[in-house]
Amino acid sequence: MTITIIGLGLIGGSFAKDLHDSSSITELIGVDTNEGHAHKAVELGLVDRILHLDAAIEKAQVIVLAVPVNAIDSLLPIILDKIDESQTVVDLGSTKMKLIEHVKDHPNRSRYVAAHPMAGTENSGPGAAIRGLFKDKTVLLCDLGNSAPDACKTALELFHIVGLKFEFMDANQHDRHAAYVSHISHVVAYALSLAVQNEEKAGYAVPRLAGGGFASTVRLAMSSPETWAPIFTQNRENILTAVYAVSEKLEEFKLALESNDEDRLKKLISSANKIRELL
Amino acid sequence: MTITIIGLGLIGGSFAKDLHDSSSITELIGVDTNEGHAHKAVELGLVDRILHLDAAIEKAQVIVLAVPVNAIDSLLPIILDKIDESQTVVDLGSTKMKLIEHVKDHPNRSRYVAAHPMAGTENSGPGAAIRGLFKDKTVLLCDLGNSAPDACKTALELFHIVGLKFEFMDANQHDRHAAYVSHISHVVAYALSLAVQNEEKAGYAVPRLAGGGFASTVRLAMSSPETWAPIFTQNRENILTAVYAVSEKLEEFKLALESNDEDRLKKLISSANKIRELL
Repeated sequence: MTITIIGLGLIGGSFAKDLHDSSSITELIGVDTNEGHAHKAVELGLVDRILHLDAAIEKAQVIVLAVPVNAIDSLLPIILDKIDESQTVVDLGSTKMKLIEHVKDHPNRSRYVAAHPMAGTENSGPGAAIRGLFKDKTVLLCDLGNSAPDACKTALELFHIVGLKFEFMDANQHDRHAAYVSHISHVVAYALSLAVQNEEKAGYAVPRLAGGGFASTVRLAMSSPETWAPIFTQNRENILTAVYAVSEKLEEFKLALESNDEDRLKKLISSANKIRELL
Repeated sequence: MTITIIGLGLIGGSFAKDLHDSSSITELIGVDTNEGHAHKAVELGLVDRILHLDAAIEKAQVIVLAVPVNAIDSLLPIILDKIDESQTVVDLGSTKMKLIEHVKDHPNRSRYVAAHPMAGTENSGPGAAIRGLFKDKTVLLCDLGNSAPDACKTALELFHIVGLKFEFMDANQHDRHAAYVSHISHVVAYALSLAVQNEEKAGYAVPRLAGGGFASTVRLAMSSPETWAPIFTQNRENILTAVYAVSEKLEEFKLALESNDEDRLKKLISSANKIRELL
């Protein structure tokens, strides 16, 4: 099987790394509009060669989209225009509703499988690609009823190779879920980072002296604007709801602090502790 | 040297584990009002034996306080009452101004060394104690000018044994710094946890399907109310300022989302990314 991966950053590059270990993949072709990334991806052995989009689509049984979600949105109909019934297109984006809506009437819609592997790091680019990124993580597969059975089978085979477990969701269920267990974590980390940086500039906080807890909470604040700004705008309504929900909870902490209510703080913290049972 | 450790949870227990490896420590005595914890600490080999407070103070050259900050506040003057000029008291609490203010006129004030090792995990109790917790982390030493030189030397020796690097701060500088690089991370993680739990209860979010990013951001939300509620009330003014600062930054994200302003989102994210250079 020949696979084309469009976008050779953290996600596409890591996906390529794991696929390379499988004997069922005969060739991995890469596409990246960033020539430096394309060159680096070959140098790192992530893909076998780089081709232009049209040639890369033509040669592959499966085309994997691992670019930012706004670029998936632009590319998906173009790719569906170019493929035939023997080919499958899979996207690995973090939002689903807008993408699926955009191609819902395309004659080749059934060749498209909408997928979101819930895995990543705060780093980006081909150099950030790591083997095993997806192992034992979950891929959320959306609206599979609208994808052809053989296309689903092909996509699941690839996900199985890289170690992903499968879950199935409607696209709108997915986007709401993703807002709360992925997207909002990024907003919160970005906000924390900005607040602490202001305090650092004022000379009061020294982040390098922090323990591991701060680093853990703020880690996602290093995630790139090219990936995350489009996710935020494509899933803005759900993310707004989530931002409001977190702000409301911060407000409860403010009130308890303002009234110096240690019992109330303990109750809030005890409730928050219950996340342990849900992870 | 005989050391008494009061409070055999994550911090006191981990401190004991590393001290045990040093030949300069002849005996480790433990004190814990929680009998289960005391029993467990001996069983795990964290301390050599358990004594009641008075006997434990009398027998030790150094008394280490590793209980919640409200308990440090109550115990510190009592311990200073009981010790003589050959003994040293060190606390490992996360707040400093109130503790130091509370004993500032005590005749044995100079035997006290105020310290905050910036290290921890989200777990608690003697079972959470881990070897190497403090290695290459930083201990903030506060207002050392008011501690006797030999008491400082003794405390620094212990911190050196467990692998801590030293930094020196005024107590009020410390509390403001700690609010931003430790305490606020906890408030943010608690708020995120509470918001996501509401969404999980409503059936929309499935935290167990999240990737590593969510787990990282929410990790501190598992930290115990007994430790953290007293930190929040003792450092409430600084923490409130920090909560307001984070809320303001969340507000900026809200506005950018509401106006669907992807450029603004990119700018906010790019600024947030700069935390990478400060860690």
